[in-house]
Amino acid sequence: MTPFKLTDELVSEIEQLIINQDDQQLQGLLKEVHFADVAEIVNELNEDEATYLIKLLDSDKTSDTLTELDEDVREAILNNLSSKEIAEELEELDTDDAADIIAELPKEIVQEVISEIEDREHAKDIVELLRYDENSAGGLMAKELVKVQEDWDVLKCVKEMRAQAENVTRVHSIYVVDNEDKLKGRLSLKDLLTTSTKTHISEVYIPKVDSVDVHEKPEEVAKIMSKYDLEAIPVVDEIGRLVGRITIDDIVDVIREEAEKDYQLAAGISQDVEADDSIWELTRARLPWLILGLFGGLGAAAIMGGFEEMISKHAILFYFTPLIAAMAGNVGVQSSAIIVQGLANDDLKGSISNRLIKEMLLAALNGIILAALLLLFTWFWKGDFYTALAISISLIVVIVVAGIIGTFIPLFLEKRGIDPAIATGPFITTSNDIFGILIYFWIAKLVLGI
Amino acid sequence: MTPFKLTDELVSEIEQLIINQDDQQLQGLLKEVHFADVAEIVNELNEDEATYLIKLLDSDKTSDTLTELDEDVREAILNNLSSKEIAEELEELDTDDAADIIAELPKEIVQEVISEIEDREHAKDIVELLRYDENSAGGLMAKELVKVQEDWDVLKCVKEMRAQAENVTRVHSIYVVDNEDKLKGRLSLKDLLTTSTKTHISEVYIPKVDSVDVHEKPEEVAKIMSKYDLEAIPVVDEIGRLVGRITIDDIVDVIREEAEKDYQLAAGISQDVEADDSIWELTRARLPWLILGLFGGLGAAAIMGGFEEMISKHAILFYFTPLIAAMAGNVGVQSSAIIVQGLANDDLKGSISNRLIKEMLLAALNGIILAALLLLFTWFWKGDFYTALAISISLIVVIVVAGIIGTFIPLFLEKRGIDPAIATGPFITTSNDIFGILIYFWIAKLVLGI
Repeated sequence: MTPFKLTDELVSEIEQLIINQDDQQLQGLLKEVHFADVAEIVNELNEDEATYLIKLLDSDKTSDTLTELDEDVREAILNNLSSKEIAEELEELDTDDAADIIAELPKEIVQEVISEIEDREHAKDIVELLRYDENSAGGLMAKELVKVQEDWDVLKCVKEMRAQAENVTRVHSIYVVDNEDKLKGRLSLKDLLTTSTKTHISEVYIPKVDSVDVHEKPEEVAKIMSKYDLEAIPVVDEIGRLVGRITIDDIVDVIREEAEKDYQLAAGISQDVEADDSIWELTRARLPWLILGLFGGLGAAAIMGGFEEMISKHAILFYFTPLIAAMAGNVGVQSSAIIVQGLANDDLKGSISNRLIKEMLLAALNGIILAALLLLFTWFWKGDFYTALAISISLIVVIVVAGIIGTFIPLFLEKRGIDPAIATGPFITTSNDIFGILIYFWIAKLVLGI
Repeated sequence: MTPFKLTDELVSEIEQLIINQDDQQLQGLLKEVHFADVAEIVNELNEDEATYLIKLLDSDKTSDTLTELDEDVREAILNNLSSKEIAEELEELDTDDAADIIAELPKEIVQEVISEIEDREHAKDIVELLRYDENSAGGLMAKELVKVQEDWDVLKCVKEMRAQAENVTRVHSIYVVDNEDKLKGRLSLKDLLTTSTKTHISEVYIPKVDSVDVHEKPEEVAKIMSKYDLEAIPVVDEIGRLVGRITIDDIVDVIREEAEKDYQLAAGISQDVEADDSIWELTRARLPWLILGLFGGLGAAAIMGGFEEMISKHAILFYFTPLIAAMAGNVGVQSSAIIVQGLANDDLKGSISNRLIKEMLLAALNGIILAALLLLFTWFWKGDFYTALAISISLIVVIVVAGIIGTFIPLFLEKRGIDPAIATGPFITTSNDIFGILIYFWIAKLVLGI
């Protein structure tokens, strides 16, 4: 396979073909291109060109392309399509993707678009999916699945399955339900390939099947599916009825998005942005944490102002404030990151107090090693052993406190039901800067007996 | 589904049963427990208990359990098993998992273990997989797959497929090869369900199939599979022969591990550690970046020492060094994180110089807003407009430089073929601390005309 590569030349070529309205060339050129790659091209076009291309290509390709576009590009294109045209695209999509697109449409046209969908069963399924919270298993699932009833004979089952499979992109499992639609078990495709067709359903189905509740959080669904290596999981409602199915490709997206969000929070970026977003969007994502950092810095300055009398005799103490702040910040970020990851992966066992004691020992060990280094350097550099000692002792205490704060805050937030990832990055750095500098001057004062 | 929950009570109960050698109770208790959950239990046991349990349970369950264990627990257990016992476990595993376990065994027993595997075909496949770099498509793939030859008739094809499917956990796709084993296309399972059995292979197979080269990097395979929503991808060798298959569950692990690694690098943790690792392991992972931070802080202290003459008249400048360092660090981390994510997702378009210009504008915008805030606060606080102005102007310059460094370093590393993620976190923070403070004093000196 030669992987598709988006080049400026390709985009210019397509733009030229659109200007020339050379429809045949365009169709020929894009015929063999995967919809995910077509989406990459469309993302680079302006609104009119993009709309032209979407209208030109077959709707079985454009519908999938639409689902892969950047949100703003998709919004602009859908704005240029009639309700009927949008409905035709939705007709081609699986219910989950169709529902996601409808959820983005302006409220006033939603009803019209839905009423234009010809397959009323499909429309009904989409409307049902719109009821669920985006941030739940119901918001992720699709209605497309293959199910058979436990009281059917195999002949009926195979016939029904074939009909249902026509609408399902990937079959994975055949779910078995009772006559009230309650999930009872599954038939594996492999069994289907390797079992004689004369067998009866109730004899072959596997009565055990993992499922998730329709209100389950996407992260939990992701954890279950990746722990048990599932490629699809059925979704059941409050009384155990089979209402939909989540496939692994959607879960891969959930995992990627979760990881990106945590990474951005740790880096002090408060909204989902990409390098190619506008300067204004990037500023809105970055400025809040910087302002927090600014106030932290003002706090640190105020603290130092409070120790003003020390500056004449012990100016060197002031030279080490960036070092103290940096170490407090780094240790805090390290401890909080480990806790946040442990919480995300459910591998934290034992009590909070045990965890704090462990972090204290760990931080003390690191602190003593670093303080010893610092003592040697500073002593040789300035030749003043007592000042060097004061700075080094402070460093140990600052590191221990920073480690405890970094461990405690995410655990505390988790207990309160708040996403602990917000405690990483600038939040920890800033609070540790202030605490660190306060502790540093206070200890130094004590050690130097000022 | 009531999800499995690992509790201390359950672990104690199992430990007690092991002490009492109550094998029947143990087998009954764990019969219905998924192997991934059994692995969680075994991770909590001591070496002897764990070995006892692994020896007791059926090898079709224990083999899967082994693949899910923490590496050190697995190593300890395998140490207590004979080569024959290990071979029996490997017999039950797919080739990729078996090869992963063999790769961890001490060199001197590898040959013995392989020679004890009864299924020689399986053994040969495992040995072939051992040849590939762990960090490549070949290192991820399994030999288990279903393939048919294009020149077969459907009857032969179905018969062969049934036999092959017995060894394959999940079928996904049926690959079509020519008589030299070169990959030609695929048959979808859905087509199989919905097409008459009388059709001939060459008429029904899809001549287009995504595949990856056996030397491709796992991250690239993950990108391709998640972009095109693939659940399995065939792997071909240098001359296009089908040599294996990678399934999405392995790719989910790759994505998770990549995300964790990047997150830890950004947080200044240099090795793959978990909260429950020993203090010593955690120290080794955390200390290197802290030492870097220490030297950065010493550098900053040295720079301030160089501006000693300013301390008597402009002590306030020294109070703001933590603020300057923090802002330089935060801006640097933000810019580098956005670039690192953009590189990981392949969404960076345009030249490096355009990107630097954009970051400069962005940083300048943020810098001006922050400097205005800082100017007001400092002016009101100290009543000294010129000092406040000097600090604020410095802040703008520091932020712009920090943004440029944060943007440039990951782009530069990527060009050099080095993982740009190492440039995030403490690396950027530390270098920006030093540059920031140097620029700050230099500009302040200039503005105040000292």
